[in-house]
Parts: sequence; C-alpha cells; structure tokens
Amino acid sequence: MKRSPSGIAPPFAIQKGVPEALYRQVYDGYRKAIVDGSLRAGQRVPSTRVLAIELGISRMPVLSAYAQLLAEGYFESRVGSGTVVSRSLPERAAPAVAAVHDRRAVSVAAVHDRRAGSATAVYDRRSFQEKGRRSQTAATAATAGRRVSERCRNLTNQEGFFRSRRAGPFVVSQIAFEDFPLAAWNSLVTRHSRNAQARSLDYGDPLGLKDLREAIAAYVRTARGVRCEEHQIVIVSGSQQGLELTTRVLLDPGDRVWMEEPGYRFARGVFAFSGCAVVPVRVDAEGLNVADGAEKCGAARAVLVTPSHQYPLGVTMSASRRLQLLDWAESNASWIIEDDYDSEFRYEGMPVTSLQGLDRNSRVVYIGTFSKVLFPSLRLGYVVVPEDLVERFLAVRFALDIGPPTLPQAVLADFIAEGHFARHIRRMRSVYGERRSALIENLRRRLGSRVEITGAEAGMHLSALLKGISDRELVAGAARRNLWLVPLSPFYMGKAARLGFVLGFGSTPLEEIPAAVHTLAGLLDSNSGSDVT
Amino acid sequence: MKRSPSGIAPPFAIQKGVPEALYRQVYDGYRKAIVDGSLRAGQRVPSTRVLAIELGISRMPVLSAYAQLLAEGYFESRVGSGTVVSRSLPERAAPAVAAVHDRRAVSVAAVHDRRAGSATAVYDRRSFQEKGRRSQTAATAATAGRRVSERCRNLTNQEGFFRSRRAGPFVVSQIAFEDFPLAAWNSLVTRHSRNAQARSLDYGDPLGLKDLREAIAAYVRTARGVRCEEHQIVIVSGSQQGLELTTRVLLDPGDRVWMEEPGYRFARGVFAFSGCAVVPVRVDAEGLNVADGAEKCGAARAVLVTPSHQYPLGVTMSASRRLQLLDWAESNASWIIEDDYDSEFRYEGMPVTSLQGLDRNSRVVYIGTFSKVLFPSLRLGYVVVPEDLVERFLAVRFALDIGPPTLPQAVLADFIAEGHFARHIRRMRSVYGERRSALIENLRRRLGSRVEITGAEAGMHLSALLKGISDRELVAGAARRNLWLVPLSPFYMGKAARLGFVLGFGSTPLEEIPAAVHTLAGLLDSNSGSDVT
Repeated sequence: MKRSPSGIAPPFAIQKGVPEALYRQVYDGYRKAIVDGSLRAGQRVPSTRVLAIELGISRMPVLSAYAQLLAEGYFESRVGSGTVVSRSLPERAAPAVAAVHDRRAVSVAAVHDRRAGSATAVYDRRSFQEKGRRSQTAATAATAGRRVSERCRNLTNQEGFFRSRRAGPFVVSQIAFEDFPLAAWNSLVTRHSRNAQARSLDYGDPLGLKDLREAIAAYVRTARGVRCEEHQIVIVSGSQQGLELTTRVLLDPGDRVWMEEPGYRFARGVFAFSGCAVVPVRVDAEGLNVADGAEKCGAARAVLVTPSHQYPLGVTMSASRRLQLLDWAESNASWIIEDDYDSEFRYEGMPVTSLQGLDRNSRVVYIGTFSKVLFPSLRLGYVVVPEDLVERFLAVRFALDIGPPTLPQAVLADFIAEGHFARHIRRMRSVYGERRSALIENLRRRLGSRVEITGAEAGMHLSALLKGISDRELVAGAARRNLWLVPLSPFYMGKAARLGFVLGFGSTPLEEIPAAVHTLAGLLDSNSGSDVT
Repeated sequence: MKRSPSGIAPPFAIQKGVPEALYRQVYDGYRKAIVDGSLRAGQRVPSTRVLAIELGISRMPVLSAYAQLLAEGYFESRVGSGTVVSRSLPERAAPAVAAVHDRRAVSVAAVHDRRAGSATAVYDRRSFQEKGRRSQTAATAATAGRRVSERCRNLTNQEGFFRSRRAGPFVVSQIAFEDFPLAAWNSLVTRHSRNAQARSLDYGDPLGLKDLREAIAAYVRTARGVRCEEHQIVIVSGSQQGLELTTRVLLDPGDRVWMEEPGYRFARGVFAFSGCAVVPVRVDAEGLNVADGAEKCGAARAVLVTPSHQYPLGVTMSASRRLQLLDWAESNASWIIEDDYDSEFRYEGMPVTSLQGLDRNSRVVYIGTFSKVLFPSLRLGYVVVPEDLVERFLAVRFALDIGPPTLPQAVLADFIAEGHFARHIRRMRSVYGERRSALIENLRRRLGSRVEITGAEAGMHLSALLKGISDRELVAGAARRNLWLVPLSPFYMGKAARLGFVLGFGSTPLEEIPAAVHTLAGLLDSNSGSDVT
C-alpha cells in the first residue's frame, strides 16, 4: 500500500493551560499560516495522527480543526494524496509586500521569552538608535542601494551567460552529451549507491577520496607527464574552485599576478576578490611572452598559464618559453599556476606534456578538471600541489567548504579504474576530431583568407580571427539565428589586439556544421560595412 | 564477453622520418616512463591495437615492442586483465627525490619548439635572474619555508580533526547513520541517474535546481517561519560555503563582525580570510548579548548568530534579544547572518521560529544545511537571501565555483517532495530524543551537581559545563578510552569563561550511553587533582 506523502508541520505554539480550546488553537495556527503565506496552495499538511503526536495532544482537537478547515475551504482532501492546502485559494503576495503587520505582533508567541528579565547588560534601544543613525548616514551615503561589499561590485555579470544556458552551434564549454557513456556511468552510480555504508555518509577526507586521488595521480603521471604522488592531489569542484584555493594559499591582497592577454575571463574575478592586481602579459605564437611579463612586472608573485592549449587563442607554449617561465619563477620565488583544462583531446602535432612535469623546483601548481573530459554538472576537478604545500592546501580546502561530496568521487574512481575513462577519451578524441576537421574545412571554404584559425590542434574550441568586424556587436544577431558566438575582444583586458570568435565544436553535431558556418558567413557579410569598435 | 580494462597511453613522441625503428621508439618510451616513475607497477597499458591507432602507426612495431617489454619483465600479461606494468618491479622513489636529470634533458622532445625563433621580445635569462634574485631576497627573507600567503597562516590546523575522522561516543556533528532511509534515497538516486539526459550533464543554474529551491522554500516557510520565495534560495555545498558566500557579498577587508563568544570555530577562518575583524560578543542565558556588542563595537557591519540553538552552549535566543538585534541591524544598516544548522530537532519548550521570519527590513541572511538532518557527505546546504541581494549573490556564487552539482540536487528535491524528508525528521526526532534523555539522565546520576547541562532542548549535542577541570588536556586520555570529547574552552576567543565539553549524541547508540558516561566520570575523577589551565 502506498502511504500518502507526508507534509511538514508548521511550528504551532499550542498552550495547554489557556481557556482557548486546543482545536481552536490548531485552526487559528493553520489559518494564520495560510493567510500570511507560510503555507501555500497545494502544499501537503501532516495527517491528523502525525500532528497530534507532534503537538503532544490527543487526536480529537486536531480532527475537529481539520474538519473545520476543510469545511471552510482552507484545506482540501484527495484520496491517496492526503490533505493539502486548498488549490483554489488566491495566490498570496510575496512576503515583503504582504508585511503589513507590526512586527512586534507577529510570531512573538513562537519565541520563548521567559528569561527576558535576566539580562545582565541592559539594551537601551533609543540611545542606541540615535548613535546608529549617525553611523548609518556615513556608511550608506556613498551608495545608492543598501551597502554590500565593495569587492563584489567588481564582478561583471558574466554569470547571466550561464543562467540562460544556450544550446546550439558554436557554444563553448559544452560537450557531446549524447556520446557520454551514461549506461556505464549510471551502473556505477547504482552500484555505489546500493553499497553505501555509514562511513560513506560521514564527512570524508577534505582532500578527497583516496581511491580517486590514486586514480588521478596515475592518470596525470601517465598521460600528462605530471610528477606527483597521490597525497599531492586535492579534489575540488572544478577549475574555478581549484584556482580559488590556489590563490588563497599562495597570494595576499596587493600581490601582482601575470595573466595571459587575452586570457580566461572568469579567473579575473578570483584574483579581484583576493585583492590581487592582474598584470596582462602578451600571448604570441609561442604562448605567454615571458620577456613581456618580466618587463612589465618582473616581481609578480605568480602567473596563471594555459600552456597546453592557451585559452582562448589555443596556442601551445613552446619549449623555450616553458623553460624561461620556470627560470623566472625559480629566480623570483614566484609560483606558476598551470590550468590544463582540456589537453585530453589533441589532434595533431607532437604530444604535449605538462609544464609541471618539466619543473624541478616544485614551483608549479597544476589544475585539472573533469568538466570537459566527462561532464560539467559533475563538479569535480583536482589540483596537484607541491609536496611542501600539502598541509597549507589542506587547511584552506577545509576552510573553503569542508570537502567534496563522497558519491561522485567513488563513482569516478571506479570509472577510471575500470578503464571507462581511457576508452571515453579515445572515443571522444575521434568524435571531436571529426567535428573539428569539418569546422576548419567549412570555415576555410566559406571565408577563405578573411579568417585566420588558431588553436585547432587540441580541445573543443578554436579561435576564428577576423579583421574589421565588431565581434561584440554581432553576438545578439547571431543568437537570433541560433548561433552562439563568444566574441574574442572581451578576453583582452587592454586594447583588443585581435577580433573574432571563440567557436566551440564540442556539442555541435557534424551534420550541422556546414549550415552553421553558412549562417556565420552570411552574418559577417551583412556586417562588413559596419563600424569597428 | 568482458572486455579487458583499458589503460591510458603515455604521451609518446613518435617520429616517423628518423632512422630509429618505430618499435624501438615505443620500447624506449615505455621503458623511460617506467624508470622515471610515470608508469607504476600494476598499472594497465593500452592494448597494442589501441596504441597503434593512437600513434598512427601500424600494429607490427607495437607488437614487437610489447613482446620485448614482456620478455624483459617490464610488462606482464594476465588473461582477462590485459597487459600491465610488471608488479615485481621495485617501487620507484618519489619524483622529487628521483629528480636527478638535468631538466633540460628531460621531456623536451615532448614539447614542440618549432617557432622558437619567432619571439618578438627576447628573454635575457641572465640579466633577469640577477634582477630576480634581488627581489627574492627581499621577498623571502622574513619567512622560513617557501613564501605562501600570509592570510593562510592564520588558519589553525583544526582540519586534522576531520581528516582522522573518529567514530565513538560523544563525537560531534555525526548523525545516526544506521537510521538514514538509504533504500528510499538510493531508489531516487537510481531513478535520476537512469533518467539522466543531456541537459542534466550540462552546467546548471549557479543558484541551484529550481525544483530543489522550491522544495526548500516551502520547507523553511512552513517549518521555520522563514519569509521567502524560491528565487531567494541559493544552493551551496553546506553552511561553510554559505558563510563564505555571504561574507563575500556583504563584507570587505577591515570590516568588523560580531561573533558569539563562545562561538563556531570554523567561522573564524572565513572571516579571517576576508580580512574581517571578529568582535567576540558575550552569550548569556538569553543568547547573544546585544548590549555587550553595542558597547564593544556598535558600528559592526554584520553579526553571525545561531539563535535557534546557540553553538556550542545551545541556548535559544530570547524574543527581546531578537528584537534588539533586529533594531540594532536596522539602525546601523548592518547585516545579520543567521546560521540555523540543526533546529529541525527540538525536544522541549515552545517551537522556535527563525530570526529571519521576525525581520521586516530584509536585514537577515539565513543559512541552512542538510549535513545534520540528512548526511554530511551529501554536501548540500542553502542560503535564503534578501530580495535586493539576489543578483549579487548570483555573481559571487558563480565566481566561487560556478555552481552546485546536479544529481544530488535532483535526488534531494524528490526526497522532499515525496514526503521522505518530513518522515525522516519525525523519526529522527524520536531517535535523538531518546539518546538525549539517556545522556542527560546518566550525566546527572553519575556527576550530580558537578555538571551543568546546557543546550539540550534541541539538536544533536549538549554542553556539559564542569568546573575545575582542564578540558583541553583531558581529550587525549579520553580518546585512548574511545571517548571523543570536544573541549569547550577553544570556542572562546578571549579568556574562557566556561570549561567543559560539547557532547554529541547523534551517532552514539542508546545502549552505549551509560558505559560512555561511566568512562567519562572515571576520567574526571582521575583528573580532579590536576591543575586548571
């Protein structure tokens, strides 16, 4: 037999020694909760049996109250779905608008006040309010709305980008969802969830599950030439948290950090929040130009780089630049933060190992993520940290948000150990490789010498450099034609050196590519006369 | 037929136009990877077929190389488990120790260098190193190890507490794991994991899944008297991230914050990281003493309070103190951060609703968590934010770590909607209620007037106040007797006003409580002669 779903009981304040009948108190409690919007139309209420037990009273008064609430139309009852607040009641206004009561009259009964006279220090409300008003004037004079932190005002509203998540040709950071081996993944989820024991419900190691850290260590040693042991791996919720964590361990407010110009926009917010000053360092055909950085700010405390597949231009950092960067970091006692976000998929040229693997002075913190190679909503990534910083990372990891959830870590550890991960990478390299070739071929055929393609050697995006266009302005028109373009110019902090688009091909099916490029070409044609910003 | 698990291929640099035979390059690549520790004993390697495809060469040279590696004992092969690196090889030393090569000789082949001559700015290594060394001397002179951030040095090593997770009587923050309705939970996990679609693999809303936010809004409106709509709910990974997020939105470095004295230790790290100054405000029998706070620092920007069940003393904030605090916040344009971590379980006295529900000026940010009421390794909690701050919270939530994972949110939304949540709370209230009564009864019988019990009205812990003991010093001895005591004095920032222990009863079975209290009493007897710190 199916039990009726159970509702949450409102926190009634039933008083047993008062003249008011118990049934009346229950009735009034519900009516008030419905009228003030705490209980909403269609919401379940507990059964009379359950409520009577919760309130510690007999069932009779509860039955009477429910009968009256049903009769008056506050409640309705349906077989199999229990008693609910009547669906035919008018929608309540939002509480902020409905707040017409004097607040002293509301809910005070629900707060016990029996020791009010025992206060040792006496709070003088009026005198304090006067003092308070003066300081308020000073505090809020400068801002229009209510005062929040200055540092959060620095954030641009790029998150709207993610809230209205788009799907269509050229979307960046999206994977070929239909090719993910869901059956294998789900059977592991089911297995782990069936075998869950007390231990897996408890807080885990803040650095992450040992099995997963071992699997990741073996993977990055083998595939990425990273030099590490399992205890140097810290599991995080993705590259973003990895960067946040690393920034906190390494940098203080006021410290200066090199960032690639153009570079990963969402990293700027992390540095800004920590009060660090970003120094944009030019990216050329060899990757980050170390000499340019040394000239602009030789004493920077750290550098954030994407040496395998520069974001967004896609260039691979040359060997000499890598060695220069390692030299600079060692000489200057600076840190290198290596973001290796999508190097699993490489289509041409020699294999490229990590910068971390070249480093002999443990100056590199290596960040990896499963958002690209598996799927974004998994929210798992990792940081490989120098041996002597493990304890610091542990303390900060814990302070950030205690640690990662257990189930997805256990599932992922087995997914890697049982070979699904290696197979998936191989399969996707071929899927993405085909999409990439089709995209390049179509871009060349349709746009010819107007387009310069960079960064197509690896990953799930390439950059299409286009001269004489206003890349930001084309985005809205493109979206109307179901093309999701990411303009290149906002990746520059300074004057944009290059115009064009970052084109994702991860989630664009092979057969849709020719038409998408056709639409893009048409859009560029119609824009060719417009002003360049 | 079961396929053999597949291994990850090391990033070989195969060169086709060189005199060295292909099979020799594969052989050398593997041998080097094994010798330098990139590949470890027992690790799987790809099949010859897969590797040949990956390298873009015929299978013959790969077969020859594998045969030689097998013959020489680098590889071993077992039916059904594929080819692995020989398990009989000696363990490799850790890379940091094994780093004897000159770094210029290692892995450079794996980095392509074909554009080295195209650099526009020329990096002058020697001159830079000289400049660098000077700045390094200044930068690192003050510190012993390598320089990391000053701010992370403020963190105490309390996380060791969580790494060596204990299980036994009195452990705090642990639940009755064996009573969690795993079957119901797991069937929802299985259902959602089977129904996973492309959309559920993609990034979700940074604020969280709409279904879950609606379920939480209905729950906190009904059970906690919180005034909110679904769009004011932000899903986070727990109270800690909730507090981090709130701090970033509301506070800047240098801002002052009231904290309860004694108060939640792990919150101090959050404020310290943001450069906020904590003002400890006395807690008495009515909760936070607002007059004491106003006297010490009337112009504080915010206050962190636990009004339902103060942590660690467990007192409930009185109605007059609540109204005083709301007055103070409104007069001073300050923010109230309400941490309502375990109010689901209330055993005696009137029901207590949230401080947020009393507030008519939207000055309260309300933080809740599922770590206590469900289980900690779920890593889900929520923040209820004032209407006008939703956009700010969204921007900062995104900057923190993009957003929460999808699967656990979907499972939890159904767990609430289908009534499991309400049922679980009711059931656990009775389980914890019995444990609590047994603990109180045994403490009173064994310790009599030596112990004062506070905070037993709600939650999963109480505080046992004991005079004339050195609470910190007793912890190690207690652990040897399998008692997991949390001393009270470290919860004070100033001079500890009270000594004693926070005793958790969430995970201590009823039948173990008498013996545990007996052991505790014996420990106190043997300590009664020692000095008080």
